[in-house]
Amino acid sequence: MASDSGLAAASSPRHFQHVSNANLLDLKTDVLFHIGFTHSVEDKQLTVSLFGDVKFFVTGGSSERMKHFAHHVARELQIGAPFGYALSPIGSTSRYVLYKVGSVLIANHGMGVPSVSILLHEVTKLLEYAEAQDVVYIRMGTSGGVGVEPGTVVLTSEAVNNKMEPVLEAAILGKRVLRPAICSRDVSEDIARAAEQVGAPFVIGRTLTCDDFYEAQGRLDGAICEYTLQDKIEFLAYCAENGVKNIEMEARGFAAFCHRLNIPVAVVCVTLLNRLLGDQLLSSPETLQSYEERPALVLMHYIKTKLEAKKRD
Amino acid sequence: MASDSGLAAASSPRHFQHVSNANLLDLKTDVLFHIGFTHSVEDKQLTVSLFGDVKFFVTGGSSERMKHFAHHVARELQIGAPFGYALSPIGSTSRYVLYKVGSVLIANHGMGVPSVSILLHEVTKLLEYAEAQDVVYIRMGTSGGVGVEPGTVVLTSEAVNNKMEPVLEAAILGKRVLRPAICSRDVSEDIARAAEQVGAPFVIGRTLTCDDFYEAQGRLDGAICEYTLQDKIEFLAYCAENGVKNIEMEARGFAAFCHRLNIPVAVVCVTLLNRLLGDQLLSSPETLQSYEERPALVLMHYIKTKLEAKKRD
Repeated sequence: MASDSGLAAASSPRHFQHVSNANLLDLKTDVLFHIGFTHSVEDKQLTVSLFGDVKFFVTGGSSERMKHFAHHVARELQIGAPFGYALSPIGSTSRYVLYKVGSVLIANHGMGVPSVSILLHEVTKLLEYAEAQDVVYIRMGTSGGVGVEPGTVVLTSEAVNNKMEPVLEAAILGKRVLRPAICSRDVSEDIARAAEQVGAPFVIGRTLTCDDFYEAQGRLDGAICEYTLQDKIEFLAYCAENGVKNIEMEARGFAAFCHRLNIPVAVVCVTLLNRLLGDQLLSSPETLQSYEERPALVLMHYIKTKLEAKKRD
Repeated sequence: MASDSGLAAASSPRHFQHVSNANLLDLKTDVLFHIGFTHSVEDKQLTVSLFGDVKFFVTGGSSERMKHFAHHVARELQIGAPFGYALSPIGSTSRYVLYKVGSVLIANHGMGVPSVSILLHEVTKLLEYAEAQDVVYIRMGTSGGVGVEPGTVVLTSEAVNNKMEPVLEAAILGKRVLRPAICSRDVSEDIARAAEQVGAPFVIGRTLTCDDFYEAQGRLDGAICEYTLQDKIEFLAYCAENGVKNIEMEARGFAAFCHRLNIPVAVVCVTLLNRLLGDQLLSSPETLQSYEERPALVLMHYIKTKLEAKKRD
């Protein structure tokens, strides 16, 4: 392969598509420690053959939900396994669980920006080594809604901090580095079309990303609570006035990483409740279950539509 | 704290040992969503009978390692199961995996401060409802060493940020709240004695807690790298000059939470390499494996010694 020999030869104009780190060009072996996969330049063809066809990287918090999504994708794309074989996670399952189903790479990212950050670094290097082309990164999940009906699918335009700034502040060595946390408009619009087609209520808007589930989000039921109900209501109203539609814990890191590396990115989270009205989940378990399935249904339709369009091209 | 008793309200003498949230006093049912356990006031005796005897809460990043530790504790404390039964996780395993082995509660906390924060809120409420007394919280894990021999067990005195400040900056509603990130000296000294007795090399010192594994820690092999080798060396030297012995991703949040609630706390991490000399793990897999086991060996000895002392009392 042309690109292969290019990488092998020292004098040639080697470069990466997305990865922004020239140090990696000289690395013979890269141990992607947390996902449990080792890439080596000698066996480059192995990495390419395993992951080179990936077109979508879909990730969410819970390992169970991502496992269900992997099976859902396998059924919908009619990707069978030989009799006596079943879909099985790739690499180490000690920190993340990864599945590869056709051109869809699926993983759980755990909770919070630091956890999703490690996964993004390692998966992005993996897909770069594999020479995967035009991969779209999508986070799917659940969230608390702000002024929208429970069950609404929120497509993040940009993710903001508690000052309503759409940036990730990263402490890098001794410095504070700011990175814009913006999603890709065209990807969100395609996913919005898919939501329309499957009949899921949706909205495109800002997402507040917090570093904690209880205090940062103004919940009144954490082990520590130093504010009043009134403080909470005022903060949520301030969020609503600033265009925030939902609150979760990863979008800002996810969008900032992808934006920095020019990777097409969307965040698709369903809201389980309207935080302006309370913190308790008042819907029935069946209703909540049907809400939770909406991002998967929307994304499945989006992926199928995209793959069919590619076939026609 | 004065403000606490103020919150704990006028007429009834109800109060919490550690939890600092009077709202919970009026909660009939508390769904500890992420660990998958529901406490209800009506069934209070159930929570007490299941968790009231807990004396140690030990948590670490990887689910596999914590599972091994649970089995290790069961063997060492000679806690058997009926024939045909085995140690099995409690509650939901979709986000965290929890084990209860005698008086030791064990869980994996995932990666990063936000992930450990959710676990701390929910486990602390659980132990409070269960009326568990004098529980010591310990994080065990692996880390990168700064100027110490690989295999050294670092007991965190305080956890610092990249400006060498021993504080957690939490964004709570619209504000930035600073909380001291200090470990309990007496607990660390007891664990140091256990380390001495099992012959594990150890040091008590500061820990740098970062929100990312690659860029924040100055690694040169992330998907993004915007600094030079020289920048990295200077930052690590600055850490060493300021008493930092190791680098990881949770201690600051862990210590700050416990310090805020007056919970005895220690952080016990082995170093797998000396970051002043490089980023690559140069030791053999067998050597690394033996390093990784050290925090477990030290803590096992500490727990046994403490339990024997309690029996004698």
